[in-house]
Amino acid sequence: MNEDLKKTVTDLAVRARAASLALAVSSTAERNAALLDLADRIDRSEAALLAANARDVQAAQANGLPPYQVDRLTFNEERLAHLSESVRQVASLPDPVGEVLEESRRPNGLYLRKVRVPIGVIGVIFEARPNVTVDCAALCLKSGNASILRGGKEIFETNKALAALISESLASAGLPADAVQLVPTTDRAALEILLRLDSLIHCIIPRGGEGLIRFVAENSTIPVIKHYTGVCFVYVDQAADDAMAEAIVVNAKVQRPGVCNAAEQLLVHQGAADRLLPRLGASLAAKGVRLLCDEASGSILGRAGVKTEPAKPADFTTEFLDLVIAVRVVPSLDDAIAIINRDSSAHSDAIVTTDKAAADRFMAGVDSAAVFWNASTRFNDGFEFGFGAEIGISTDRLHARGPMGLRELCSYKWLVTGTGQVRG
Amino acid sequence: MNEDLKKTVTDLAVRARAASLALAVSSTAERNAALLDLADRIDRSEAALLAANARDVQAAQANGLPPYQVDRLTFNEERLAHLSESVRQVASLPDPVGEVLEESRRPNGLYLRKVRVPIGVIGVIFEARPNVTVDCAALCLKSGNASILRGGKEIFETNKALAALISESLASAGLPADAVQLVPTTDRAALEILLRLDSLIHCIIPRGGEGLIRFVAENSTIPVIKHYTGVCFVYVDQAADDAMAEAIVVNAKVQRPGVCNAAEQLLVHQGAADRLLPRLGASLAAKGVRLLCDEASGSILGRAGVKTEPAKPADFTTEFLDLVIAVRVVPSLDDAIAIINRDSSAHSDAIVTTDKAAADRFMAGVDSAAVFWNASTRFNDGFEFGFGAEIGISTDRLHARGPMGLRELCSYKWLVTGTGQVRG
Repeated sequence: MNEDLKKTVTDLAVRARAASLALAVSSTAERNAALLDLADRIDRSEAALLAANARDVQAAQANGLPPYQVDRLTFNEERLAHLSESVRQVASLPDPVGEVLEESRRPNGLYLRKVRVPIGVIGVIFEARPNVTVDCAALCLKSGNASILRGGKEIFETNKALAALISESLASAGLPADAVQLVPTTDRAALEILLRLDSLIHCIIPRGGEGLIRFVAENSTIPVIKHYTGVCFVYVDQAADDAMAEAIVVNAKVQRPGVCNAAEQLLVHQGAADRLLPRLGASLAAKGVRLLCDEASGSILGRAGVKTEPAKPADFTTEFLDLVIAVRVVPSLDDAIAIINRDSSAHSDAIVTTDKAAADRFMAGVDSAAVFWNASTRFNDGFEFGFGAEIGISTDRLHARGPMGLRELCSYKWLVTGTGQVRG
Repeated sequence: MNEDLKKTVTDLAVRARAASLALAVSSTAERNAALLDLADRIDRSEAALLAANARDVQAAQANGLPPYQVDRLTFNEERLAHLSESVRQVASLPDPVGEVLEESRRPNGLYLRKVRVPIGVIGVIFEARPNVTVDCAALCLKSGNASILRGGKEIFETNKALAALISESLASAGLPADAVQLVPTTDRAALEILLRLDSLIHCIIPRGGEGLIRFVAENSTIPVIKHYTGVCFVYVDQAADDAMAEAIVVNAKVQRPGVCNAAEQLLVHQGAADRLLPRLGASLAAKGVRLLCDEASGSILGRAGVKTEPAKPADFTTEFLDLVIAVRVVPSLDDAIAIINRDSSAHSDAIVTTDKAAADRFMAGVDSAAVFWNASTRFNDGFEFGFGAEIGISTDRLHARGPMGLRELCSYKWLVTGTGQVRG
């Protein structure tokens, strides 16, 4: 253990904790002023941000990063404009802090209020997307939380430039500069130290691929809110409306195949398979989707002249994140529910049916964060749910499940007012 | 790694997961029937339970356990009657499952409902109190969760007898017997295996001392809800009512000193110290409380003829769980808030004052699970808060903070009803 590194990281967390106490009693106006100042500052600092980002891009190219990864970490004028706009949007959202969630008067006269408060100090661990730096800092700040940001080494120069702007904006609004801090090293040892500071940091949110999330979950003694990716299902029931089934299946699969709420798996009731599968298969194939089929679906699609491939067992639990879908024919609604509860990642699963009883049974029985009836899985999203912003889509069951917005970045505390009550 | 043990524990969790899916769609009546049957069965099985418990008691005595620990694990007729009564009370509570927490209609016509559902599979890790076995099983069952119970070796015979009764009650109500399972070994290796089954178990609740909780938190890849003990403060403000201050300080310290919401620390505003400290000190001393004092409070109490001892620095952050209190004089309300945020365990902290502005500032500024104004810290309790029952008092900030009742044993899911909506 490097003692200097341990001291650096611990001191940073101590400062974050102190800042979080000041933030918890800061006003909405102060936090919004910091955010609006940051948006303006990003606009005014375009040249400096592009220059810092160019150093990261050059290093990434020199290190042979594949072009799509280099693209992901690259800023340009348009992306910077989008970034400052997203900060202004966060500033415009209602403040979640201070809302009274419940109140009651006890028989002994005690008056209880359950009030939404910030969580405290949140550690955000992310990879190589510099917009995450600003998005996460803005959401944490808006919700009154101090944040500790630890990004990937590929965007370290960009992050330093962004963190400097954020700290100027905090100072301009009279808020502690330590309310948002960047871990000053991308050393993995620093991350391991950070993940064990459970007396100072209250929540860890890893934003990135499954490997990162798993590493964090296994090494953290701080509670982690995980945003794993999705193996999402669409089940087309016997009583589905044909055109609606086609529209939803195609949208869920192809509208943006690389995201967590895109469909990866198609189940079709055997009573609808002959009628519907050819239409669904042809539509998907026309959009360039590869169909990995079980025997029953492959046979029906083959007779209909739609090109398919036989699925391997692993395909039925795979998140393809691509124009690929696995297809199965199922004997009943209850089989569909059981398969989804076994093979899905409990993220976003849909039924298409005109049969309300079937839909009710599906929605009660499918144990997933979001269950859709006659709508695309792609709607499992903080913006679509009306949260205004999201820090991710939680695949956990504790604290937050599904889209995680400003309210989910909060905890609560109990305020109890008495007139001298004591326990007998 | 013992592969047989790994298989035993994993199979148990697989069965728990299957049972949890059945429980999630079970009716309130079915779950209540199982609970009422269990209460009756405990009453009818008194002789068998006492016999099983006697084997644990004999072993504990043979192993030289101190008498207070032997007492803790001992059943008698009265304790068994209390146990069955507590199960009947859980049955009588409202079912938390299925409540619609929010609903909204989106501009695109999607209808969203956020519905309370069980968490899924909960692992409860506890030590040597056999009432915990039944209490936790009952609370998990009522809230639709499958539970895996892992108790200490000191009560293994008692736990086996209780688990057999629970499984008969589940069967009698037509619920899966695997809905409540006892880990069939108290081998620590089995616990370590269990704590890493994060794809099957959704939540771990350790019930026991700090050492157990810390071991679980450090070894679990499953989210843990921690119930650490409390370093609770009472702050007596300059504007306190004298008699009320005396009543609250004495109650918070002496009514039940061994529990987590008992006060361990007293702060007195310097403007009230000369007036109030002698009265508070004399009252506490009369109840047999040792007063560990800072210089200022020791000097005032000494002049008033109250016996004190000088406090060591560590006393100001200690949970005594005994008739001992540490006492300090503080220069201001803001100092009291800062001291509490630094030295308390953020569990239950109180202000005594007639000054509403001071109380508001204290309640906003103190970052604890429950903050009391003119009431004893002893009220931080699920029963006192009207929850009907509690599985513990969470010292975490995610998911549940403060008393954890049936609702806090639930998660939620999003049910989205459409008419064919797709994303553009």
